[in-house]
Amino acid sequence: MFENETQEPVDFTIQQLGPRKIASPYKAYQYVSDDQRTLYHTLTGPSSESLAHDPAAASYGFELAGPREKIYFDPSKIRCGIVTCGGLCPGLNNVIRAIVLQLYHHYGVRNIYGFQYGFEGLVPRYGHEALILDHERVKHIHQRGGSILASSRGPQSPEEMVDALERLNIQVLFCIGGDGTLRGALKLCSQIQTRNLKIGVIGVPKTIDNDIPYTSRTFGFETAYAIAAAAIRGAHVEATGARNGIGLLKLMGRHAGFIAANAVLASRDANFVLVPEVPFELGGENGFLPHLYRRLEDRKHAVVVVAEGAGQDLIQSEEGGGATDASGNIRLKDIGVFLRDKISEYLKAMGMEFTLKYIEPSYLIRSAPPQANDALFAGILGQMAAHAAMAGKTAMFVGYWNNQFTYVPIAAAVSRTKRLDPRGNFWESVIECTGQPRMMVNSPELLKSDRGSR
Amino acid sequence: MFENETQEPVDFTIQQLGPRKIASPYKAYQYVSDDQRTLYHTLTGPSSESLAHDPAAASYGFELAGPREKIYFDPSKIRCGIVTCGGLCPGLNNVIRAIVLQLYHHYGVRNIYGFQYGFEGLVPRYGHEALILDHERVKHIHQRGGSILASSRGPQSPEEMVDALERLNIQVLFCIGGDGTLRGALKLCSQIQTRNLKIGVIGVPKTIDNDIPYTSRTFGFETAYAIAAAAIRGAHVEATGARNGIGLLKLMGRHAGFIAANAVLASRDANFVLVPEVPFELGGENGFLPHLYRRLEDRKHAVVVVAEGAGQDLIQSEEGGGATDASGNIRLKDIGVFLRDKISEYLKAMGMEFTLKYIEPSYLIRSAPPQANDALFAGILGQMAAHAAMAGKTAMFVGYWNNQFTYVPIAAAVSRTKRLDPRGNFWESVIECTGQPRMMVNSPELLKSDRGSR
Amino acid sequence: MFENETQEPVDFTIQQLGPRKIASPYKAYQYVSDDQRTLYHTLTGPSSESLAHDPAAASYGFELAGPREKIYFDPSKIRCGIVTCGGLCPGLNNVIRAIVLQLYHHYGVRNIYGFQYGFEGLVPRYGHEALILDHERVKHIHQRGGSILASSRGPQSPEEMVDALERLNIQVLFCIGGDGTLRGALKLCSQIQTRNLKIGVIGVPKTIDNDIPYTSRTFGFETAYAIAAAAIRGAHVEATGARNGIGLLKLMGRHAGFIAANAVLASRDANFVLVPEVPFELGGENGFLPHLYRRLEDRKHAVVVVAEGAGQDLIQSEEGGGATDASGNIRLKDIGVFLRDKISEYLKAMGMEFTLKYIEPSYLIRSAPPQANDALFAGILGQMAAHAAMAGKTAMFVGYWNNQFTYVPIAAAVSRTKRLDPRGNFWESVIECTGQPRMMVNSPELLKSDRGSR
Amino acid sequence: MFENETQEPVDFTIQQLGPRKIASPYKAYQYVSDDQRTLYHTLTGPSSESLAHDPAAASYGFELAGPREKIYFDPSKIRCGIVTCGGLCPGLNNVIRAIVLQLYHHYGVRNIYGFQYGFEGLVPRYGHEALILDHERVKHIHQRGGSILASSRGPQSPEEMVDALERLNIQVLFCIGGDGTLRGALKLCSQIQTRNLKIGVIGVPKTIDNDIPYTSRTFGFETAYAIAAAAIRGAHVEATGARNGIGLLKLMGRHAGFIAANAVLASRDANFVLVPEVPFELGGENGFLPHLYRRLEDRKHAVVVVAEGAGQDLIQSEEGGGATDASGNIRLKDIGVFLRDKISEYLKAMGMEFTLKYIEPSYLIRSAPPQANDALFAGILGQMAAHAAMAGKTAMFVGYWNNQFTYVPIAAAVSRTKRLDPRGNFWESVIECTGQPRMMVNSPELLKSDRGSR
Repeated sequence: MFENETQEPVDFTIQQLGPRKIASPYKAYQYVSDDQRTLYHTLTGPSSESLAHDPAAASYGFELAGPREKIYFDPSKIRCGIVTCGGLCPGLNNVIRAIVLQLYHHYGVRNIYGFQYGFEGLVPRYGHEALILDHERVKHIHQRGGSILASSRGPQSPEEMVDALERLNIQVLFCIGGDGTLRGALKLCSQIQTRNLKIGVIGVPKTIDNDIPYTSRTFGFETAYAIAAAAIRGAHVEATGARNGIGLLKLMGRHAGFIAANAVLASRDANFVLVPEVPFELGGENGFLPHLYRRLEDRKHAVVVVAEGAGQDLIQSEEGGGATDASGNIRLKDIGVFLRDKISEYLKAMGMEFTLKYIEPSYLIRSAPPQANDALFAGILGQMAAHAAMAGKTAMFVGYWNNQFTYVPIAAAVSRTKRLDPRGNFWESVIECTGQPRMMVNSPELLKSDRGSR
Repeated sequence: MFENETQEPVDFTIQQLGPRKIASPYKAYQYVSDDQRTLYHTLTGPSSESLAHDPAAASYGFELAGPREKIYFDPSKIRCGIVTCGGLCPGLNNVIRAIVLQLYHHYGVRNIYGFQYGFEGLVPRYGHEALILDHERVKHIHQRGGSILASSRGPQSPEEMVDALERLNIQVLFCIGGDGTLRGALKLCSQIQTRNLKIGVIGVPKTIDNDIPYTSRTFGFETAYAIAAAAIRGAHVEATGARNGIGLLKLMGRHAGFIAANAVLASRDANFVLVPEVPFELGGENGFLPHLYRRLEDRKHAVVVVAEGAGQDLIQSEEGGGATDASGNIRLKDIGVFLRDKISEYLKAMGMEFTLKYIEPSYLIRSAPPQANDALFAGILGQMAAHAAMAGKTAMFVGYWNNQFTYVPIAAAVSRTKRLDPRGNFWESVIECTGQPRMMVNSPELLKSDRGSR
Repeated sequence: MFENETQEPVDFTIQQLGPRKIASPYKAYQYVSDDQRTLYHTLTGPSSESLAHDPAAASYGFELAGPREKIYFDPSKIRCGIVTCGGLCPGLNNVIRAIVLQLYHHYGVRNIYGFQYGFEGLVPRYGHEALILDHERVKHIHQRGGSILASSRGPQSPEEMVDALERLNIQVLFCIGGDGTLRGALKLCSQIQTRNLKIGVIGVPKTIDNDIPYTSRTFGFETAYAIAAAAIRGAHVEATGARNGIGLLKLMGRHAGFIAANAVLASRDANFVLVPEVPFELGGENGFLPHLYRRLEDRKHAVVVVAEGAGQDLIQSEEGGGATDASGNIRLKDIGVFLRDKISEYLKAMGMEFTLKYIEPSYLIRSAPPQANDALFAGILGQMAAHAAMAGKTAMFVGYWNNQFTYVPIAAAVSRTKRLDPRGNFWESVIECTGQPRMMVNSPELLKSDRGSR
Repeated sequence: MFENETQEPVDFTIQQLGPRKIASPYKAYQYVSDDQRTLYHTLTGPSSESLAHDPAAASYGFELAGPREKIYFDPSKIRCGIVTCGGLCPGLNNVIRAIVLQLYHHYGVRNIYGFQYGFEGLVPRYGHEALILDHERVKHIHQRGGSILASSRGPQSPEEMVDALERLNIQVLFCIGGDGTLRGALKLCSQIQTRNLKIGVIGVPKTIDNDIPYTSRTFGFETAYAIAAAAIRGAHVEATGARNGIGLLKLMGRHAGFIAANAVLASRDANFVLVPEVPFELGGENGFLPHLYRRLEDRKHAVVVVAEGAGQDLIQSEEGGGATDASGNIRLKDIGVFLRDKISEYLKAMGMEFTLKYIEPSYLIRSAPPQANDALFAGILGQMAAHAAMAGKTAMFVGYWNNQFTYVPIAAAVSRTKRLDPRGNFWESVIECTGQPRMMVNSPELLKSDRGSR
């Protein structure tokens, strides 16, 4: 499930700004204590050993999220800030709304600011005004896509940002963002520590690709693959609407194919799904193109789903190296356009008449409002983030594990990345569903891993 | 509303295969007679004269659709065929289903065949098998996008097709298709007449762009702009989600901007809409790019909707002439990609940081199932097509005018094309809604036509 | 199409508060003049005479809506009010938003007030505060169902309301509401005239049932039957999911069955549709219950759609007379529950085991946001209402006829009501689609009208 | 989480029809062995002891689902049957389709029968014909609600059913159904054992309420609360659309309030949610009605969501005892209508004018097609059911625990029932979201449990 990197062991204890001495105004039936945890590893029996690949997590588990009996900050004095960074994702407004309403109604916090355009909002030279967030401002936003705070990519100077937090007297900053944002949040924490300040930094992980580790789920992901599944249906209609029709759909998934795989399982109309975790070749007896050709000969149509990070080695080898974007992400070559062209070339060369429709719905997916289950999930994430903040926790994010909301050190999240396991049960279900060969490669070593070619 | 071509006058009388001698098994409360009509021109008062630009239509009106008391074909003996041609459009299956169920249940026709892959299905060398269409085959298809008969582009030999109709003893062919298909259907009629056969050809006009004349509406069009409006909402979310965010959405509309204009009015979130009927320039004081720049300076975001046929002159002048596709349509240069690049170049040159998201939802729109009002409309079109067929009418299509279903000669439909009127009330409402200048051009003559620049 | 009442002839000329002397700040390409009209009656040929049943309308037609070159009110001084009355309807917020943005951006009006809770908002004793309506307040409301102004039923004293308009110095009141509201608006106009004031009253007709005459369409109606069609699909799934399954769906339609009829045509899954315009009997050889029984014997399932105003005579005769609600509408007996019970009794008596699912989706329909085509339509209605107001027109509403927006005297709208024509082509299409008998009655005279029983 | 019944301990080992000697034609990358398990209990730390209330489950865990290396049945000879029982639930067709396609494509099974109308389909006297299920029959059914096999309630004689299985030579019966169906399946197993037959019985649990124990999720549940959340939005629009508007929504949930609670969290528009697990009183200082009254005084609108099983004690005490339906379920009194009437009485007595809209969307929810995540889930359940069947497992159902698909003895599922924990974190989040008091009762003992009244 994780990339095979050798990693520094991570300490899963959550950092605390200081002792909690204030009785919580939040009246819970049962408060949660810091030593309630959920297990990291839940499998037993043969082969489960090999899966317990993270000794630190295995021995610690994850701290349960929820209201603490004593809190650190005085609600009547605290000033909080919220920032959303990186690409849009369904549910951003729901997280914002839930943080604001939880702080406001259940803790009595009265000063909550929304910094606009991501970390830029904390840097004076951009001139972005902070929004005052209250009940009236947020009451309807959970039904809208995007972020009322807008966003931006890329880091800003931690020094300048902490300057701003000090100047504005902000005690807690909620950072809703992905991998890069969480790295930025850690740098903020360092700078805060250097200055010996008592400012909490609470993350809410945002990755539409669901590729952040130590949380089984992130908000917006389910909405993403639900809309993607509908797009696959469209691709299928197009494919079956023409002789040798091909519906080629490019989906998100820079490093992990979760959206593509889940969308395929939800729609059950795709015939090939290509993801970053499973290498493939175009030509050769067992390459993708001949398989596609045979499928067309056999059934007269085919639906191909490709995650944006799939087959990068193929493009690189043809087109050379890539650049990086403002967030430091490697700019991927466009596998969708590449495949579209390769398929066309190949089928023309084979003398087959065909119709190819290329579909790229990513922005329509990102900008959608969340579907019900993501709205629910994003809302609870916001509630739990507020509880963590008031308790004086810091350098952590809200996760989800074994159906429990959890608190996890940000340091853990950025230490590795989550991937589809091409040898696991889930991928097994995916290729059962498409009927594609397990490995579309030609070299004997790679093929050995494909015990069950069909 | 129509292109300014000088045209041969069209005879609006519907052709009839022969005298109707059979009492209809369809028991209507009130049968419709061939001389019931609806007016072509319904405006009075000043300036209405100039609108009455089609004397033949004005003096005739349109024959009302509906069941005739006497019919031409013997339902127990007739064999019918259905074919769907050209691009996909929401509602194709609904038309097919309604024709089949109407013929089957209300006339007692028992032999209905679906020819696959458009006109190819009538040409033996392609080897496409005809489907038998009955209640069981069609009962659930109205809920699915695409066409169960699939489709293809481009003409086939009328001789070969009439050979097939003769060989299979088909008396009526229903042709569901666009401009090109209707032209093909006319050629079929000629060939049928040459051979002195009694085979009816009934058209159901399919143009997602709604650009076929003498019918105020075509099926699938409303679904198209409804989904397009949702995509504009996505573009708006993207635009407002980033500093100087631009959502650029390309929609269908080869020659007519109806989908773009209607989607803009339905969503009310777009700031510029570019259509084939309204020329624009990129640069110069009053060009599109400076207007976009000023909008971004002013409001920090912009949504631009462009129909695929807009601004072709701009691309041609840069990139040279175009080719044609299998249907004989001129292959349009991609205005979306062109604009995306021009906007980027311009804003970079102006030193503005921006984020541009380019969205192209066309295949997702075409392949959707019809929304309720299109399902209703497509269903009645099918019912009316069946009535026309049994009455022995031919060389005609089912239209809609003044809220009435009508029968119109195919010859009329292919004589001209329908366009947005840039001087009419509808376009007025559109630019009220976007707030864009009436004309984004620089030459004094063109600008004179823009009385109300804002 | 209209109820057979003898009516006073209506004058279709629009009242005008006074001469228009101010050049419009709205810069149209082509202004509309008051004598541009669209025809009332558009049919020719046999039997069309009998349809021209409204000589006043036929000789006048309807004035075209749109911007006038000269206006009556000075935009810099005018104060406008908006009120929404009666039941909720999809699109209310869209009308409000379009009026506000049109007045604000295109005429420069700066004082627009929203009166809350319908006409109550103009009566001081209720204590409802008026909302200030500006760009910020309305910008997102077009995506939400209901009315941001809320509503109430029933009349208020015209004197008190005109007192309020005088006190607040309101020159134009936009009344968005149904039959009762338009009657109330007429009373306001009388009171205004009595006091010799120059206050315009502009109606936007709201009837989810689409039963207001002299306009072929009202906003929200299409959304209503679209959602109703989806509910019919649910009823069909329930019906086919059990042995002798019956899905019984009650829809809106107090006096007119348009929603039920359109929903049935859009879904094509219903087997019986009962509307107020077509009487039916329960028992007897040709009554509804035996027909339902035979359908179940034959096909094992049935979907029955009933409009709330259908079969009231049957209930009255069993249960006695009705009361009226706050709007003065006769409180209908619940035909849905009545039918549910009658069906159960009958089938039990016949010894048939069955499963009946009763579904009543009306509030879910009313409260939905408008679908795209209604959003578009409601938006233009608002734009046209603003044009009429600035021109000093009064005692009128914005209608739609022959695909043109029109201005119609309110007096015309309240002079009669619109009904489904059980002898017309549209109802013909509906019963073709359900396959139900034309008349489910037993008396010979009524049956005579059913030429085509099947 | 479970009801406090004293229970016989359950053995979690899965029964096996006999030794598995046939090499599986299904080529997995990694087969799953019977002793791979996932933990039942995953919490550690204080208070977790008390949660480990099921020693048998805790010591065993749950067997992992998936393909076994050796199978029991010869795919070329086996004949399988599928039956769907009880109420409709989104996803039934998806389970059917996945079982059929998995058996057909991956095991090569050629004889699969669908028994119609639940267990009735196995009893000759009903005369229901079995459907042949193959690729063509099932290919489009995953997009439709309901069950292509239809359903019925109530048990049938195990003897007659096993007679039918023997006569038809069925070796595996897939039973998709709820609590009652699983009990029926166990009786089938007994009868099979008594006759010493080798027939497998595989359950797929269907409960839209998600109240079956030992599986954290059942198909259709998420779709249900997603649609319910949209209905809450409608109720909210209605409530805010009138002065003292009340939207009262009744949802499913006979014994467990999961749908209501999840829908409330997803929509975040409800102010009160009443579930079977949390008793409440109507009157008295701290009863529901005074709380509702104060909310209306304060905010002028309220949304109330009630699960059908809530407050049964209140109705019983007024109206007397209940009856049972064909499945043996106690027929609940209608809490929705009861509350509607009680609220009206109370508010009238208090002299408050109000508007109450009562909404009951249950059949529209049950009959919907599954949303993406349920389609995905139902599909994998079907795949896993097929693997279990071929391996010769029996008397078991496919569950889901810790994000793993599992095999669980049916005996465990019917031994107890799952409930919302009113003292747990999830319910805590729900009442945070509504803002309602923890307990709306008046007696001091019950109130003690409400530590945090607000």
